[in-house]
Amino acid sequence: MSPPSILDRLRIVLVRTRNPLNLGAVARCMSNFGFLKLRVVEPYEPAFREARSAVGGASVLAAAKEFPTLAAAIADCSYVVGSTAVRHRVPKQPLFALPEASDQIHRQLQSGNVALLFGNEKSGLSNDDFSHCHALLHIPTRDKNPSMNLGQAVAVCLYELCRESDPHRLLQTPRMKTRKSSRGGGKTEDMTTVPRAATASDLERLANSLTDALRLSGYIKPGSDRLVEENLRAMLRRQHMNTSDAQTWLGMLRKILWKLRSEV
Amino acid sequence: MSPPSILDRLRIVLVRTRNPLNLGAVARCMSNFGFLKLRVVEPYEPAFREARSAVGGASVLAAAKEFPTLAAAIADCSYVVGSTAVRHRVPKQPLFALPEASDQIHRQLQSGNVALLFGNEKSGLSNDDFSHCHALLHIPTRDKNPSMNLGQAVAVCLYELCRESDPHRLLQTPRMKTRKSSRGGGKTEDMTTVPRAATASDLERLANSLTDALRLSGYIKPGSDRLVEENLRAMLRRQHMNTSDAQTWLGMLRKILWKLRSEV
Repeated sequence: MSPPSILDRLRIVLVRTRNPLNLGAVARCMSNFGFLKLRVVEPYEPAFREARSAVGGASVLAAAKEFPTLAAAIADCSYVVGSTAVRHRVPKQPLFALPEASDQIHRQLQSGNVALLFGNEKSGLSNDDFSHCHALLHIPTRDKNPSMNLGQAVAVCLYELCRESDPHRLLQTPRMKTRKSSRGGGKTEDMTTVPRAATASDLERLANSLTDALRLSGYIKPGSDRLVEENLRAMLRRQHMNTSDAQTWLGMLRKILWKLRSEV
Repeated sequence: MSPPSILDRLRIVLVRTRNPLNLGAVARCMSNFGFLKLRVVEPYEPAFREARSAVGGASVLAAAKEFPTLAAAIADCSYVVGSTAVRHRVPKQPLFALPEASDQIHRQLQSGNVALLFGNEKSGLSNDDFSHCHALLHIPTRDKNPSMNLGQAVAVCLYELCRESDPHRLLQTPRMKTRKSSRGGGKTEDMTTVPRAATASDLERLANSLTDALRLSGYIKPGSDRLVEENLRAMLRRQHMNTSDAQTWLGMLRKILWKLRSEV
């Protein structure tokens, strides 16, 4: 057993991938570079584990986890990066070229799990997918033909993530100790630790409670829910909460909600 | 615009490639990164121009040149680099990891044409092929599974070759374009700026509204106000809000407050 490296904290998340050859190619390059955590959301091909061309990637595919929603796939991640070929969109999140994105990901891996998302071959990630992201990443390609093949895009990203230094380096200090995250459980945080960044599921719970409160108070009008929810999700991610702050917010919102409901 | 002369001087040479899908993938990533000179030696599939999956790479394939021998394919090149997954051979030539090889290739491109060779999917380049090389390059992969898919290996090499002098890397810092905050209160931010951080007075207004809501909902018990307020203030500062997000929060809280008050 090798000691845990920061690579163990990175999840490659494929959203609505259609082509089993691409799944195989992604698994293969993950194995090449030592990233072994593959997650698949709504794959078009149900038998994605049969994906061919996974020479050397078969074990990655066999260990891949399938999720019905993106939210579920990234629930244990505190930082989510969406890849995009588009550079002229108006992002709600910072948009980094790959080398900068890689620096950012390395920083975030010090304090929690990170998900790197790749969308469908034809349409990429949707706006709803992007609303789960803290940042976006693009590979610097020609304007004339910016859109890369999925397997090649993943290979380039993983290469960059390994490029600088020993990718298998151990987690650096400050380290985190095991602690119970949510729900009033005993906080057993070591005095010397950095607070752990809030996970996607922390933020999702927060966004849901906030949305409920906004609906009850009339801030959200019926029909505009979806857009407002996407904006809220993006805003919460911009704010880099730690788990403890997220818990505090959630507690406050639940109390407010309880009051709003009791008065109706 | 990138300096066309440099990219034009690099030839990607595929030796005895068997799989038309790989030919297509190579053509596609060449187009992505702006390397347009593809040469093919003894392709297994004679109809290599039909190669599928060359989305955006069709023009590269159409312009590709076929050669009966490697010697003929590299005749106009003054520096030849062979790629290999093997790192424990005893090379007659210097063996560079990709980042170093890229530096070397850039230097050589100043003075002549350079060929970058990729061998057959199964067996790679032969010893005879290597004998034509000035240097070898390997992509740093895991010992456990060093051998990359051909299309992915080419993509990673071309990415690295573009990486330093990157003509396409436009977005050094996260930029935000003009956007309206979600709730109509139209803040239009400057095109080129990163959003401004919320000021202390923004945060103070926010803390006050939040405190009011928490008092009305019973989250803050009389007597504990001061400590809770201090904690809230510290928490809001930890979250690094920008002015636009602070405005959004304030708008939401005011609506919630209005509702809480109207119900009392």
